[in-house]
Amino acid sequence: MATIALDAMGGDFGPEVVLPAAVHVAKKNRDLQIILVGDEAVLRDSAKSQAIDLDRYFEIKHASEVVEMHEDPRHAVRKKKDSSMRVAINLVKEGHAQATVSAGNTGALMATAKFVLKTIKGIDRPAICTTIPSFGGHTHMLDLGANVDSSAEHLFQFAVMGSVLAEAVDNTREPRVGLLNIGSEDGKGNAQVKQANELIKTAPVNYIGYVEGDDIYTDKVDVVVCDGFVGNISLKTMEGVAKMIATMMREEFNRSLLTKLAGMIAWPVLNRFKKRVDPRRYNGASMLGLNGIVIKSHGGADVLSYANAIEIALLEIEKSVPEHIRECMEPLLEKAQVETQA
Amino acid sequence: MATIALDAMGGDFGPEVVLPAAVHVAKKNRDLQIILVGDEAVLRDSAKSQAIDLDRYFEIKHASEVVEMHEDPRHAVRKKKDSSMRVAINLVKEGHAQATVSAGNTGALMATAKFVLKTIKGIDRPAICTTIPSFGGHTHMLDLGANVDSSAEHLFQFAVMGSVLAEAVDNTREPRVGLLNIGSEDGKGNAQVKQANELIKTAPVNYIGYVEGDDIYTDKVDVVVCDGFVGNISLKTMEGVAKMIATMMREEFNRSLLTKLAGMIAWPVLNRFKKRVDPRRYNGASMLGLNGIVIKSHGGADVLSYANAIEIALLEIEKSVPEHIRECMEPLLEKAQVETQA
Repeated sequence: MATIALDAMGGDFGPEVVLPAAVHVAKKNRDLQIILVGDEAVLRDSAKSQAIDLDRYFEIKHASEVVEMHEDPRHAVRKKKDSSMRVAINLVKEGHAQATVSAGNTGALMATAKFVLKTIKGIDRPAICTTIPSFGGHTHMLDLGANVDSSAEHLFQFAVMGSVLAEAVDNTREPRVGLLNIGSEDGKGNAQVKQANELIKTAPVNYIGYVEGDDIYTDKVDVVVCDGFVGNISLKTMEGVAKMIATMMREEFNRSLLTKLAGMIAWPVLNRFKKRVDPRRYNGASMLGLNGIVIKSHGGADVLSYANAIEIALLEIEKSVPEHIRECMEPLLEKAQVETQA
Repeated sequence: MATIALDAMGGDFGPEVVLPAAVHVAKKNRDLQIILVGDEAVLRDSAKSQAIDLDRYFEIKHASEVVEMHEDPRHAVRKKKDSSMRVAINLVKEGHAQATVSAGNTGALMATAKFVLKTIKGIDRPAICTTIPSFGGHTHMLDLGANVDSSAEHLFQFAVMGSVLAEAVDNTREPRVGLLNIGSEDGKGNAQVKQANELIKTAPVNYIGYVEGDDIYTDKVDVVVCDGFVGNISLKTMEGVAKMIATMMREEFNRSLLTKLAGMIAWPVLNRFKKRVDPRRYNGASMLGLNGIVIKSHGGADVLSYANAIEIALLEIEKSVPEHIRECMEPLLEKAQVETQA
């Protein structure tokens, strides 16, 4: 049976969002056990005001502290030993849960998870991977900001982890892995990317070579690998463009009575389009490379978004994502060892 | 009087687009002199088939060769000494023109321009700067792919050049310059960005500190400075997202007779929105930092787009952009010299 520990205090809205989202997922998945981690009194108060029967659906694990959204990650690791985030991750470490979901401070979540769970052997740094809407359906992209100044070896590891994740959650064989670059010709790119290109050619993945920023949104590639600095800029660019387009469109439709009428008539079509790219359907980033499943929800996630993040955690449990990454890395480590001895 | 030399053979369509675009601009600007550079026979043939009276509007400068779109830039510099691109740049070098516009091979244009015109004293590498639609109007962004692995000093120079350009073409005082990063807090970013941040604080620009990928599309910043690798990925991401949204929207409106009808009714509104973000209005990237004005048009530019690139060249001539960059760099060079001697 799958068990997920939720950091019920994390995010901009805490239990106000986490509780109804958890109920939503629990109702759909009768075999799933959910542990709510947080200040028990606060959780019970919030449940009462939302008319949620906590004990019917959940187990409660009390945690007396909360990591603040802008707290220094090092401070959170060293001083907040009874935070809801830390206690939830401990539950994964101790085997009481297989996954945790948090909408809390990203840096603190990464630092705490790394400190408590440690990385899988052969993985130097965990990476943040999320799905991005694309014309073909969606693309997985990593790293999205956990690591800057990544080496070619790190990018190699990201390629392996991204491929395992895509294969597991999309149920596809040999997902196409591309390396983000500023051109597809061999001479293009910076030193880091050129080295990584040579290295990933030897990886046990279906490597298709360089891809460009616009390829992310096409049906050309399933997994896009990049340094966290570049990945974060690209992701934020996407968010910025989408927001600008949505705002401008709203402005144009609100210009006059006539345009408002046109907007009402076009609404079902626009709404259908909106659903296709709804960011809430994509909420839930995987922190890959850890001995356990850790899903980061957007801090401002609403109920639907947060429920999506829990469902990603459930899927990764069912597909044993960390175990598959371990299985992929083992022969590489053995090979490296043989080569070192030779 | 302003004179612009056009590489009439460059781009996917060559004279087929360059000629009518040049006529369009020439009619609007009676004081502008345009020199068409290219194979005279080809130009005359094209003009004839388009019913354009070449000698009425233009001066022709014959050039026997053409740089191919995928030609190695080094090959173009070394072997194509009579290419339309090279001859057009030579005209700027020799003072017969103040600016050149080309829709040809970007790498070759940059390499040839750098070789012939040389960089302004104090500028190590020219940068590619373009305007990007934003909610406030537009944002200038550089570098967009001319330089990868830029040092903090290079980013400092980009900040100065971008500020000069924005001040000149937007007619604003003290444009807000931001450094692209993955967070706005002081500890965020890679080594390159952290160093550049300290350095740009000392630059003669209105530096507002770090900006993120989504800020490019807001009214928060006028000039966004970044490494060419990051800038190119961000620009291509923008193009990819915009294309995906446009295609999906078209699909939704084409789904049935009813949605098509809704599309027809909403068309004036959608079209007005489209005009606001029309990429053709943003065509024409400046290669900044050279002793002369070089504008790169998109290879696939249509007549309207190419005309826009010519108008950017004209504006930069009127505003003496290279001279202003030189004036900005001079005191910095003197200061550096004094410090070295001290």
